[in-house]
Amino acid sequence: MIASKGYAAQTPTSDLAPWEFERRDVGEYDIQIEIMFCGVCHSDLHQIKNDWFPGIFPMVPGHEIVGKITAIGSKVTKFKVGEIAGVGCMVDSCRTCENCTDGLEQYCTVGSNQTYNGLGKDGTPTYGGYSNNIVVHEDFTLGIKATENLAAIAPLLCAGITTYSPLRHWKVGKGHKLAVLGLGGLGHMAVKFGVSFGAEVTVLSTSPEKEAAAKALGAHHFVVTSDRKQIDSVKNSFNFILDTVSAEHNMNMYLSLLKRDGVHIIVGIPNKPHQVSAFSLLAGRRSLAGSGIGGIKETQEMLDYCAEHNIVSDVEVIAMQDITHAYDRMIKGDVRYRFVIDSATL
Amino acid sequence: MIASKGYAAQTPTSDLAPWEFERRDVGEYDIQIEIMFCGVCHSDLHQIKNDWFPGIFPMVPGHEIVGKITAIGSKVTKFKVGEIAGVGCMVDSCRTCENCTDGLEQYCTVGSNQTYNGLGKDGTPTYGGYSNNIVVHEDFTLGIKATENLAAIAPLLCAGITTYSPLRHWKVGKGHKLAVLGLGGLGHMAVKFGVSFGAEVTVLSTSPEKEAAAKALGAHHFVVTSDRKQIDSVKNSFNFILDTVSAEHNMNMYLSLLKRDGVHIIVGIPNKPHQVSAFSLLAGRRSLAGSGIGGIKETQEMLDYCAEHNIVSDVEVIAMQDITHAYDRMIKGDVRYRFVIDSATL
Repeated sequence: MIASKGYAAQTPTSDLAPWEFERRDVGEYDIQIEIMFCGVCHSDLHQIKNDWFPGIFPMVPGHEIVGKITAIGSKVTKFKVGEIAGVGCMVDSCRTCENCTDGLEQYCTVGSNQTYNGLGKDGTPTYGGYSNNIVVHEDFTLGIKATENLAAIAPLLCAGITTYSPLRHWKVGKGHKLAVLGLGGLGHMAVKFGVSFGAEVTVLSTSPEKEAAAKALGAHHFVVTSDRKQIDSVKNSFNFILDTVSAEHNMNMYLSLLKRDGVHIIVGIPNKPHQVSAFSLLAGRRSLAGSGIGGIKETQEMLDYCAEHNIVSDVEVIAMQDITHAYDRMIKGDVRYRFVIDSATL
Repeated sequence: MIASKGYAAQTPTSDLAPWEFERRDVGEYDIQIEIMFCGVCHSDLHQIKNDWFPGIFPMVPGHEIVGKITAIGSKVTKFKVGEIAGVGCMVDSCRTCENCTDGLEQYCTVGSNQTYNGLGKDGTPTYGGYSNNIVVHEDFTLGIKATENLAAIAPLLCAGITTYSPLRHWKVGKGHKLAVLGLGGLGHMAVKFGVSFGAEVTVLSTSPEKEAAAKALGAHHFVVTSDRKQIDSVKNSFNFILDTVSAEHNMNMYLSLLKRDGVHIIVGIPNKPHQVSAFSLLAGRRSLAGSGIGGIKETQEMLDYCAEHNIVSDVEVIAMQDITHAYDRMIKGDVRYRFVIDSATL
């Protein structure tokens, strides 16, 4: 076993604090990564607080992991020691169901093995990236070509793929009007990808003060959602809305902004169910869809696309010790746009 | 003006009762139809009771109309006196918006003119098919080739097109597993169309006693939704669910029955919003969509398809005087599968 240290929540009501634990030894097909950076995802907070479902404690969060490979198993062919690698939200899956064989392991019908707050293939709890190292099967390890600006690459492993995947699946691009709902960690990536894919991008936000920042990211338009006049001016106008908000919001109002056959794609997860009127969908044959991260193959494609097009996340690097304060700021939306832990501070 | 008689609700709390009113004279492009049969749609009851929104009273319901043409305007080219014709849920639309020019007048962005409980192009209230005649623009009149079994054709004008249109839009057919939720006026048409299009059809119903009837309609499988074991056996299995239920139901349970990329299509309209968990959509990249009736062109296509494939509705013909009793039975699901008013009884 490999002695490891990280920050864990011991219970759903305790703050994160230093914790020592063990990782499995490097197996034949495993990669050992010394973690350099780990992004802070809103879902980390949801999970340590049991907002969605009862979690597995102690819990070491973190699924936006970038680091350097320090060891590989005897049968590993895809990676070498010394290379930079990433780990996202999954560390394994059944690999045999229809979705896994289609390269969409995130929809594994058995349930993919989550990077933390899950169980590994060996049945033991998984621990995430708020730690100094991780051991992962090579098939769930992502290759990263860059050697610089790695903190800004880490959030691509969740915030990046979570927005890239639905935009690709629904073929969003030239000729489409795309609204991005919420301008946080996911939203700012959605704007970057939407613009890069050629769509006309509007940011929908409750915060008028975010307009300049939205436009700096490349957004073509900005609409304040609390302003009735502004909302009325964009009724029936969007082909797609990418909804990154994980707080409750008025779904029927947003559905009314879609053109006929428009699709409202949920990637944010509020604690309570959405209230959806049948009329909101019948009118204009609209759809409300969901999308979860992306498969391993597509995640690699996204990382390569980002490298080619100079797309990274806008980040604020923090020390591990500042995580609780960072959560407080994240809840208030006081971050542009993603906190990333510098694992050297552990 | 044309003296007309029908059954109207004078207020949202009164039963339907005989009422005399006037229709507009036959204009240059109008068709006058002597109504022979009018189907009884659940939405008739919702609307006279103000379940969805405040209605226009007195209200003469009915939008599944079949009858004989008795007069035509001087510029009418599409129809002749003596022919059989139908009228569905719309009698006009703006005709200039993107949806109207695409032949999807039901999604007119200005709002199509409803057959009843709406306003005509002249701004006066529209009155539906629980009456002895109707005057309609030729562009919103449907041609019916049959001369017999007209009572069984009437429900195609709403129940038929409402289920035909989404199955065509989502290209449901061979290789697809289709679940039909609810076996009433809409559901039984969905089964007939689904089977006719080559899909493997499962009826999902709360009523175990409907199994034989479902199979007689052509359904391949039958699942009792209150039976946990039966429901578990069809998890992650359907490509499409066509949801015809207008009572409240557990949307998250039904979404869990869809395969990856499956679509749950709502055509029934409950009085309260659906509770939709984000997880239900994210898991498997599922969609919840809505579909409303169909455009005029597609409605004609559907009628021609039905004529060619001998598809009609299973109906129970009633006298106009029995409408309130029929509503009571409809609420209990005690009809196989559509009441149709014999207008000769007026």
